[in-house]
Amino acid sequence: MPCSEDEEFYGFGLQLKSLASTGRKRTLRVNSDPREDLGDSHAPAPLFFSTRGYGVMIDTARYMSVYMGGNLPLAGKSAKTAEEKTLPSDEAEKLYAREAIHAPLFMDIPAARGVDIYIFCGNNLKEALRRYVLFCGGGCNIPLWGLGLHYRIYTKADEKIALKTAETLRQNQIPCDVLGLEPGWQTHAYSCSLKWSNERFPHWQEMIAELHKQGFHVNLWEHLFLDEGCPIYDSMKEYAGEFQVFDGIVPDLFIPEAQEIFKNYHVDNLIRKGVDAFKLDECDNSDYQFTSWSFPEFSRFPSGIDGEQMHSMLGIKYQQTIVQSMKKAGVVTCGNVRNSHLFAPPLPFVLYSDLYDHVDFIRGICSCGFGGMLWTPELRHAASENDYRRRLQTLILSPQFLMNIWAMPHPPWKQLNEELNRQGVFHLPEKEDELLALTRECVNMRMSFVPYLFMAFGRYQQEGTPPFRALVTEDPENPELRKFDRAWFAGEDLIAAPLVDGEKDLTIPLPSGKWYDFYTGQIYEKEVIFSGDYQELPILVRENSIIPLAQPRQYLDNGRNFEFVINVYGSNPRPFEFFNGQIFSESLPENKTAVGLETLINGKCLRVSEVKYF
Amino acid sequence: MPCSEDEEFYGFGLQLKSLASTGRKRTLRVNSDPREDLGDSHAPAPLFFSTRGYGVMIDTARYMSVYMGGNLPLAGKSAKTAEEKTLPSDEAEKLYAREAIHAPLFMDIPAARGVDIYIFCGNNLKEALRRYVLFCGGGCNIPLWGLGLHYRIYTKADEKIALKTAETLRQNQIPCDVLGLEPGWQTHAYSCSLKWSNERFPHWQEMIAELHKQGFHVNLWEHLFLDEGCPIYDSMKEYAGEFQVFDGIVPDLFIPEAQEIFKNYHVDNLIRKGVDAFKLDECDNSDYQFTSWSFPEFSRFPSGIDGEQMHSMLGIKYQQTIVQSMKKAGVVTCGNVRNSHLFAPPLPFVLYSDLYDHVDFIRGICSCGFGGMLWTPELRHAASENDYRRRLQTLILSPQFLMNIWAMPHPPWKQLNEELNRQGVFHLPEKEDELLALTRECVNMRMSFVPYLFMAFGRYQQEGTPPFRALVTEDPENPELRKFDRAWFAGEDLIAAPLVDGEKDLTIPLPSGKWYDFYTGQIYEKEVIFSGDYQELPILVRENSIIPLAQPRQYLDNGRNFEFVINVYGSNPRPFEFFNGQIFSESLPENKTAVGLETLINGKCLRVSEVKYF
Repeated sequence: MPCSEDEEFYGFGLQLKSLASTGRKRTLRVNSDPREDLGDSHAPAPLFFSTRGYGVMIDTARYMSVYMGGNLPLAGKSAKTAEEKTLPSDEAEKLYAREAIHAPLFMDIPAARGVDIYIFCGNNLKEALRRYVLFCGGGCNIPLWGLGLHYRIYTKADEKIALKTAETLRQNQIPCDVLGLEPGWQTHAYSCSLKWSNERFPHWQEMIAELHKQGFHVNLWEHLFLDEGCPIYDSMKEYAGEFQVFDGIVPDLFIPEAQEIFKNYHVDNLIRKGVDAFKLDECDNSDYQFTSWSFPEFSRFPSGIDGEQMHSMLGIKYQQTIVQSMKKAGVVTCGNVRNSHLFAPPLPFVLYSDLYDHVDFIRGICSCGFGGMLWTPELRHAASENDYRRRLQTLILSPQFLMNIWAMPHPPWKQLNEELNRQGVFHLPEKEDELLALTRECVNMRMSFVPYLFMAFGRYQQEGTPPFRALVTEDPENPELRKFDRAWFAGEDLIAAPLVDGEKDLTIPLPSGKWYDFYTGQIYEKEVIFSGDYQELPILVRENSIIPLAQPRQYLDNGRNFEFVINVYGSNPRPFEFFNGQIFSESLPENKTAVGLETLINGKCLRVSEVKYF
Repeated sequence: MPCSEDEEFYGFGLQLKSLASTGRKRTLRVNSDPREDLGDSHAPAPLFFSTRGYGVMIDTARYMSVYMGGNLPLAGKSAKTAEEKTLPSDEAEKLYAREAIHAPLFMDIPAARGVDIYIFCGNNLKEALRRYVLFCGGGCNIPLWGLGLHYRIYTKADEKIALKTAETLRQNQIPCDVLGLEPGWQTHAYSCSLKWSNERFPHWQEMIAELHKQGFHVNLWEHLFLDEGCPIYDSMKEYAGEFQVFDGIVPDLFIPEAQEIFKNYHVDNLIRKGVDAFKLDECDNSDYQFTSWSFPEFSRFPSGIDGEQMHSMLGIKYQQTIVQSMKKAGVVTCGNVRNSHLFAPPLPFVLYSDLYDHVDFIRGICSCGFGGMLWTPELRHAASENDYRRRLQTLILSPQFLMNIWAMPHPPWKQLNEELNRQGVFHLPEKEDELLALTRECVNMRMSFVPYLFMAFGRYQQEGTPPFRALVTEDPENPELRKFDRAWFAGEDLIAAPLVDGEKDLTIPLPSGKWYDFYTGQIYEKEVIFSGDYQELPILVRENSIIPLAQPRQYLDNGRNFEFVINVYGSNPRPFEFFNGQIFSESLPENKTAVGLETLINGKCLRVSEVKYF
């Protein structure tokens, strides 16, 4: 493909190590340990977008490489300027440690022929991106509770500890909507029995009922490598791939009969018994682990696809299967998954990783937008109070506020360090109080943004705009925004730019126009610098926007009558656009509606307790 | 391939990140930044050896994957023990973070059919390894000077600085045999003109003559991506690959005419003008750099091979071409190269890397033995005096004592830190004296081992035993040796086990029999622990062996009449075996000769000044 000099590229699904891919080779292998900047990832999708306003989707489940400019054909003109040609020979090397975008792009798919390539056009990058999302069926429909705190409890927990954790959260006034159970809920995991452990969860139905009563939804960990103790093991064996994983079988969900068995099992035994969501683990491959970690790329599946194709598609097929099960049971879900690919936008699953670099986690939010994917910068533990603060703040305007405390028996505010937490060595009471207050503050802040974010998901579904996306999507011609991967748009009007522990300051380049400090209303243009001493999550608000902030609740399922404080930034606010209007007022239609500030306040579409003007 | 439970595997050429590959997937891609333990490397060869005494060579230039056990076929029996089956579900995960060697090996070559597989058998691992080496034509023949200090000077140096560096080395009594010049010798590098710079080296012929007079050999840096300023550019263009690299052409050396042009240019303009060796850089690929760093895998070459095949074979073909040039000019050479593959043993080139982890560098020596390859743990700079000491010591019994000071204008003893060295900030005189003395001591020690090591190279050539190899080659049934990658055999009777900076102590498992501390004669069996305080390079000597130590000289070319101290370890020394006997005495034949201690001392085959009994 031709490539112009001033063009920058983005995409390839979840990319933790870089945002722009210009001048790089990206090899799209599924890898649960993407520690290097090579293109492999939990969710590598053959899909990229250009600052010139088009997107390219290569419709293949094969591992492929894309050379993003820089490979100069023999007949091509030199990439060196006249000045560069005179560089001393010992200095010329560095010329090649840079982008060279004078060359075409090349796509290399070693193991396939006749692959379709789709070009998504638009007046600009964002439009092309929206068209990709709409082509896939639009963004996902998630339940309101999918935006609340998702707290995953210790893997060795039993039903008493699960209920106790729920109680602790409520007692401490930490709003929470989802409790997640880790492998220990099953009689056997690695491989999975998908059966409740009688030892740990003898009264699991009562437990679920009790949790529901308290406003919690239940998310269960699983993977699809089935143990011989799993009730569908025997019926599934004939549809299994030719290799075992974790000594279990790998069902081929591309065979309708196998998918049906898998679906029905989930509907009858789990979803209809009160399970609202799943965490679909280990469906990504890894060459960093021992070979027994997954099935070989050359292995065959009964449907006719091979291991390489299955690795690419496993997450997507698994998500689709779970969504179909949920639909059958009439449940709107929002789960987690470790692998995804093309056609991810309509699937209500959030990606996650065992990696933990904070900057990478922030970059993941930015990069995922280009794939129509969602990513959680989950909190597992923290190196210090400030690290905890910064990681919690990063969650506030992220796709999912996930506290994944699977490896610690006690809540993080009791002890941030994983090892000490397991040993039962706790922080002093004053520090615990501080950490608890910090947690409460951050989750409350999330809760106040939930209606705003839910609206962004409505826009995702109906218009295709990813709710979380890199700043460059707003102004692709601005060179400062092109490589910036430390902030993202949350919805239309907010920019979140978390600080990370230990940094002195963070300079945030801004898209054109005026931007307000969310808290103080101070106005910035072009750029803003936040010092490492700044205690809050840096948030910038677009001029003339209206941000409705809900009064926090302990959970989201109890009706739609939020009470709002309305923040108005600028003197000439744009009409407020409702998507998914049903959470605001019964009188609003489901689809897009624009309402002026006056109507908003007085027109009963919101219960407004206060209006603040900045 | 079948695989037995107690079997361990080694090989795949240079591997910096692990020694044994059992239970792992190895993907053999050429990569100049092998930062992860995936099988990719500067020199990945489809060749592995088993502790059961056989080797497997897959004759392909394609990137391939080998699954080294662990992938359990659907019908295969479970890898779990009865006890493991009862593990709680939250603990079963760790079972798969281990080797599982109950499963067969699988080889996956996506892009080739009809590949030949060679099995090398033997009574043991070492014998199988020797047979591979002999199958390739035996180990390389290197000149004696190839074992002396190879000192590469600052890349911005001109001829005055080159001569000054030589003078400094001689004045400081640092023995040195090879001076290496970096890209700056050429009018243009990246891509290469292969022409002497008139600005920096106007009297290069006089400079070479002067260096020769002082006993130095000259090694020139180059790569084969040719600049339009290169005299053979026009004639080579028709034999070039379809992509440029560094804005230069990539000659296809698989075309005899192209190889001939390349050879003749080197013979006429460089080798016959006094150049004795080359450093063949950048002939490995890297996906970690910008795409312009090399040619794409899908690209085609006029001989009919593609970029993937060329990446695999480029180093081998390049080495062969240089060796043929040298032969034509009657020069025995020993150079450096950044890429190699199968059939490396007869090629007198030592691998190197831009990476710099000390433990990885030690591991490289161990792993290379299984590929019939040589590797230098080169010294470039050091973090501290102790780091400098440990890195220098690692070089003493390594394939090549390379001080690669290309990035520093001053010798390391003036300033170990690269940045400060460039700024001209020097250590205090006392520290400089200390570092200089340390350097002298380590190089002198190397010089005293040169005849011993040269003999090991003779054995390599004639019997196939790699001169440097992992301890497991000696006793594959010893479980302690199987994973040990911190020590290697140098020749038949010495084990070198360098300490690295900052470690508290190092426990070295020993092959069966008694082992002597080289310096003190203290006897160890089974294992020995060296404390981090131990100041010397830990060296262990096999019982009843005779180690001839030469009186150090300033360089090695001045005749064969070494004067020896003979160290005798044990009361019943085995006859001393000569290979490459010509460096010891004119009366000895070229081939293997065994001589008893008495004859050795009195029989005029060595000039012995002292015999020490331990």
